[in-house]
Amino acid sequence: MSGTRPAKVEIVDVCARDGLQNDKVMVSTADKLDLVRRLAGAGLRRIEATSFVNPKRVPQMADADAVLEGLAGMRDLSVSALVLNEKGFRRALEHRLDEITFVIPLTQTMAERNQGTTPEALADSWRSIARPAAQAGLFRSVTIAVAFGCPFEGRVDPAAISALAARIADAGADEISLADTIGVAAPAEIEEGFARLAEAAPGLAMRAHLHNTRNTGYANADAAIRAGVSTLDASLGGLGGCPFAPGATGNIATEDLAYMLDRSGVQSGLDQAALREAALWLEGIMGRRLPGQLAHVGPAPQPQLAA
Amino acid sequence: MSGTRPAKVEIVDVCARDGLQNDKVMVSTADKLDLVRRLAGAGLRRIEATSFVNPKRVPQMADADAVLEGLAGMRDLSVSALVLNEKGFRRALEHRLDEITFVIPLTQTMAERNQGTTPEALADSWRSIARPAAQAGLFRSVTIAVAFGCPFEGRVDPAAISALAARIADAGADEISLADTIGVAAPAEIEEGFARLAEAAPGLAMRAHLHNTRNTGYANADAAIRAGVSTLDASLGGLGGCPFAPGATGNIATEDLAYMLDRSGVQSGLDQAALREAALWLEGIMGRRLPGQLAHVGPAPQPQLAA
Repeated sequence: MSGTRPAKVEIVDVCARDGLQNDKVMVSTADKLDLVRRLAGAGLRRIEATSFVNPKRVPQMADADAVLEGLAGMRDLSVSALVLNEKGFRRALEHRLDEITFVIPLTQTMAERNQGTTPEALADSWRSIARPAAQAGLFRSVTIAVAFGCPFEGRVDPAAISALAARIADAGADEISLADTIGVAAPAEIEEGFARLAEAAPGLAMRAHLHNTRNTGYANADAAIRAGVSTLDASLGGLGGCPFAPGATGNIATEDLAYMLDRSGVQSGLDQAALREAALWLEGIMGRRLPGQLAHVGPAPQPQLAA
Repeated sequence: MSGTRPAKVEIVDVCARDGLQNDKVMVSTADKLDLVRRLAGAGLRRIEATSFVNPKRVPQMADADAVLEGLAGMRDLSVSALVLNEKGFRRALEHRLDEITFVIPLTQTMAERNQGTTPEALADSWRSIARPAAQAGLFRSVTIAVAFGCPFEGRVDPAAISALAARIADAGADEISLADTIGVAAPAEIEEGFARLAEAAPGLAMRAHLHNTRNTGYANADAAIRAGVSTLDASLGGLGGCPFAPGATGNIATEDLAYMLDRSGVQSGLDQAALREAALWLEGIMGRRLPGQLAHVGPAPQPQLAA
């Protein structure tokens, strides 16, 4: 089943977190702050800025505290950090954050490898976090990771989405995201996954986190918004390789997604010229061409005036 | 409006024609024949093999006659050549071709720059070709080029699609294709364009030719099949830069498209492993990495067996 597109969609840029976290190029705190300011200047109103993880496992996120300090008090910008456990949540409470994003993998093996626990234990952790997070005034987003395929377990049963989403909604959340963490999904799977989510957590805002690893990311984004998703993650330049898929391209690119949405009559509210400029700046920082296309080929040609 | 996906979709590989025609790497006739044989071995049943153009303008197509001679009599494969005018059609009649693809740009400026004439004159040419082509037993496909945007005139009026498609259908055709020649379209435009085509040429087979220049190509493919398109062009490896969009990626990649379709429950009938192998072979011929992703990241992970 394919629905109609909404009039507008919100884009959350995750470049400073998911885009950078596995990159070998170490980016300075100052450049990360510059990145977020450029994104905010291009119209982004939600940013995933960093994550509370073990700096030995993810050295790029070792400056989480400094990044959040640098962003504290930015106007018109909702700043989020990724939280993987209760320890991370306690760190989040020490900052002037606007949102947290809690992550629960759908599969046992991914939960074990990535967070050293089980999906059930993580759902219990979320239950203990959800209320204090609300009391702290935080917007609470929960991501179901590897929702369309797992690097260890392969295909997943869509029924598992229903069960986990119902537990998350029951504990309390403001938004649930389904993540195609390793970039394997096709549009029909996106439609089914979000239909399950809408049924299991009726009325709750739905968000999608998509990678373009196998060139299905933008088709999946279009499928997601037709399935009722109101918020899409994207990363400037399409930065963000997956550690489980060597050679993979990253997240869908913020600037390319905005182009597709706007040209389909779906308002993203973003300034495409500013995004392209920011993407070229980011390529300078990273020292390589990134997967986003718009910065290189430019927008669609305009009519040429007669001489 | 978004429809449901069909049970199966036919893919026409256009690598030997559109993939190669603007490439600086000159590919030998023997390698072109090898390419087509590999594609046929992977399950492709329709191939756009070459075009009848001025070899001074398109040196890569100078061996059109030799390519078609080499492919003559291949079993289970429908071989097509691109025809831009009546002179090209007379050349086509000299070969054992199965199909011709005639091209009419939607805009005046593109028709003038690409074919030195007008869309109206090309529609008249088609009228004089359509009957003898049928009498010669050729499957007749007509492509409306720059159907979603022109490098010179910018946005096009979708109403123009209706008018041109009606003229083509009236002259006689077995299939009409809408081409996003410069890779600017978004899914909503694809839906509108094919809705216009279906209305103007009811009952006629619809085909889409899509480029991934701005990362919308696969989303457009999904939109096209939901809009009633039964045949999609693609190019092995995603080869095929556009001369009007420097730095652009090419056609959508045959192997990535097959992955997306099959995983959405739409049969392409193609052998994905054979396609990936062929794409890696082609990268060796071209001496560079191509935009297709599947050959590099591989299919979705399978469940790992317990040790």
